[in-house]
Amino acid sequence: MTRVAVPIQLRWGDLDAYGHVNNATMLRLLEEARVRAFWSRGGEGTPDTAVIEADPDAASWTLIARQEIEYLAPMPYTSEPVVVEMWLTKIGGSSIEVGYEILSPDRSQLHARAATVIVFVDRASQRPRRVAERERAAWEPYLGEPVAFRRG
Amino acid sequence: MTRVAVPIQLRWGDLDAYGHVNNATMLRLLEEARVRAFWSRGGEGTPDTAVIEADPDAASWTLIARQEIEYLAPMPYTSEPVVVEMWLTKIGGSSIEVGYEILSPDRSQLHARAATVIVFVDRASQRPRRVAERERAAWEPYLGEPVAFRRG
Amino acid sequence: MTRVAVPIQLRWGDLDAYGHVNNATMLRLLEEARVRAFWSRGGEGTPDTAVIEADPDAASWTLIARQEIEYLAPMPYTSEPVVVEMWLTKIGGSSIEVGYEILSPDRSQLHARAATVIVFVDRASQRPRRVAERERAAWEPYLGEPVAFRRG
Amino acid sequence: MTRVAVPIQLRWGDLDAYGHVNNATMLRLLEEARVRAFWSRGGEGTPDTAVIEADPDAASWTLIARQEIEYLAPMPYTSEPVVVEMWLTKIGGSSIEVGYEILSPDRSQLHARAATVIVFVDRASQRPRRVAERERAAWEPYLGEPVAFRRG
Repeated sequence: MTRVAVPIQLRWGDLDAYGHVNNATMLRLLEEARVRAFWSRGGEGTPDTAVIEADPDAASWTLIARQEIEYLAPMPYTSEPVVVEMWLTKIGGSSIEVGYEILSPDRSQLHARAATVIVFVDRASQRPRRVAERERAAWEPYLGEPVAFRRG
Repeated sequence: MTRVAVPIQLRWGDLDAYGHVNNATMLRLLEEARVRAFWSRGGEGTPDTAVIEADPDAASWTLIARQEIEYLAPMPYTSEPVVVEMWLTKIGGSSIEVGYEILSPDRSQLHARAATVIVFVDRASQRPRRVAERERAAWEPYLGEPVAFRRG
Repeated sequence: MTRVAVPIQLRWGDLDAYGHVNNATMLRLLEEARVRAFWSRGGEGTPDTAVIEADPDAASWTLIARQEIEYLAPMPYTSEPVVVEMWLTKIGGSSIEVGYEILSPDRSQLHARAATVIVFVDRASQRPRRVAERERAAWEPYLGEPVAFRRG
Repeated sequence: MTRVAVPIQLRWGDLDAYGHVNNATMLRLLEEARVRAFWSRGGEGTPDTAVIEADPDAASWTLIARQEIEYLAPMPYTSEPVVVEMWLTKIGGSSIEVGYEILSPDRSQLHARAATVIVFVDRASQRPRRVAERERAAWEPYLGEPVAFRRG
């Protein structure tokens, strides 16, 4: 199983009054990693997919249906980018689940684990649309185990 | 079981390029509802707690350990505040779990369900601290059923 | 000259690592006050205008051309809303300038002064459009003196 | 006169409902560029200064006293980082003014011009403190002309 690793630049403004990257902002970092990983602009090492979530004018939209995140260690501001590793934990009929691990710049510290369920929606009908065979084939190399959440 | 209902003013800037309140921003709304519900500044109808998460100078800190959210209907910008209903789904040894439902201003639409695990940390030792009896007694009226997530 | 006063709910997440409302976030508060003051949804005491800045589907768009802000006193988190007072400092051919004062909830502390130049743009042509006579008439009661910036 | 150029990664979440980088968010980008340029962590090509604005535990704080920004062209999301060029437009007794130009990744498009007045504050006394000779000497190579705002 292949993971996609995306470097994400932190911002000092990501910190909250506790001096760590804010818990809600962590989802913003995941969003950015996801956009960079799945956006079909020919980044190397990324899935060759239809546009996911990045382009509001695309014929196919994505909706975030569910997110789960476990915070393992507070994240300080660093000028070096943190690393978001991503893989697919499920390819459903009209949805996928993305798994994440968020690591310090040198990958020595795991800060959080997370998962996002993305539903594909036809823009005209506003109804879920089937994952295409082309997409399924492109994504299969990235399909791996579920996120190792500590709960349950 | 008593729920706490907190009105939260949306901001037009909460919208993303899809024209709905952004998925990460939804956790920001929950954070604000939580701060307003649990902050011991004598809001009426709110738990009589030690300070939770609002004051970085307090002797006791809180850490967000886990969050889960299901998005049920896209949330548009409204000038009327949305309503965040909160209750406790668990009171643990050194943590609590907060359940949420995020509703449209007139409560006719359920936009999301969510849960947050909060761990109490002693500021000096940076170690989890026990929930005090006083806190447990104050919180029990708010203890209710788990969040009705659709997953498993 | 009439001012419009809009209460804006702060969020704990508006604080940065210094424990005050972040300097960039202050413009977010002004944006929200502006949207609430100028949005033509029949709020009482607000100018009867065409939609300003709130509706991306409107025939007429607005662009922010310039902003200036002086920070006078750090703004702490307060559960009571801060007050943004607004008036017009100029009605131009295809633009207006909005002046602001941002006050503590009880208006005893002036936190910042600011000004925003808004240009009206025809959505089809993407060119500036003239301020209509109807708009000018509706706005004149709000026309007042320039913002009392300390610089030059 | 030397300029400091800092690449800043955009986030899809920086876009607002108009599909462009939000006007308030632009100040967030400037903040990040400033932190990266002035933070004394040995970035190459950056002023050798005392810590500016990045470390809330530093003996010397900075306050943002004033900001001004002119928006020249809407900024779309790009996966390549935008470039923030910075220089000093003034070195005062206890303050400096930073000038900025925000450019597209290939520097072909100027998106905004801006200026920030930063006041240095002694953390113990909470009073402005003098710019040290060492700082003044380190900053002089970066001292240049005022920002070419179009307003008066």
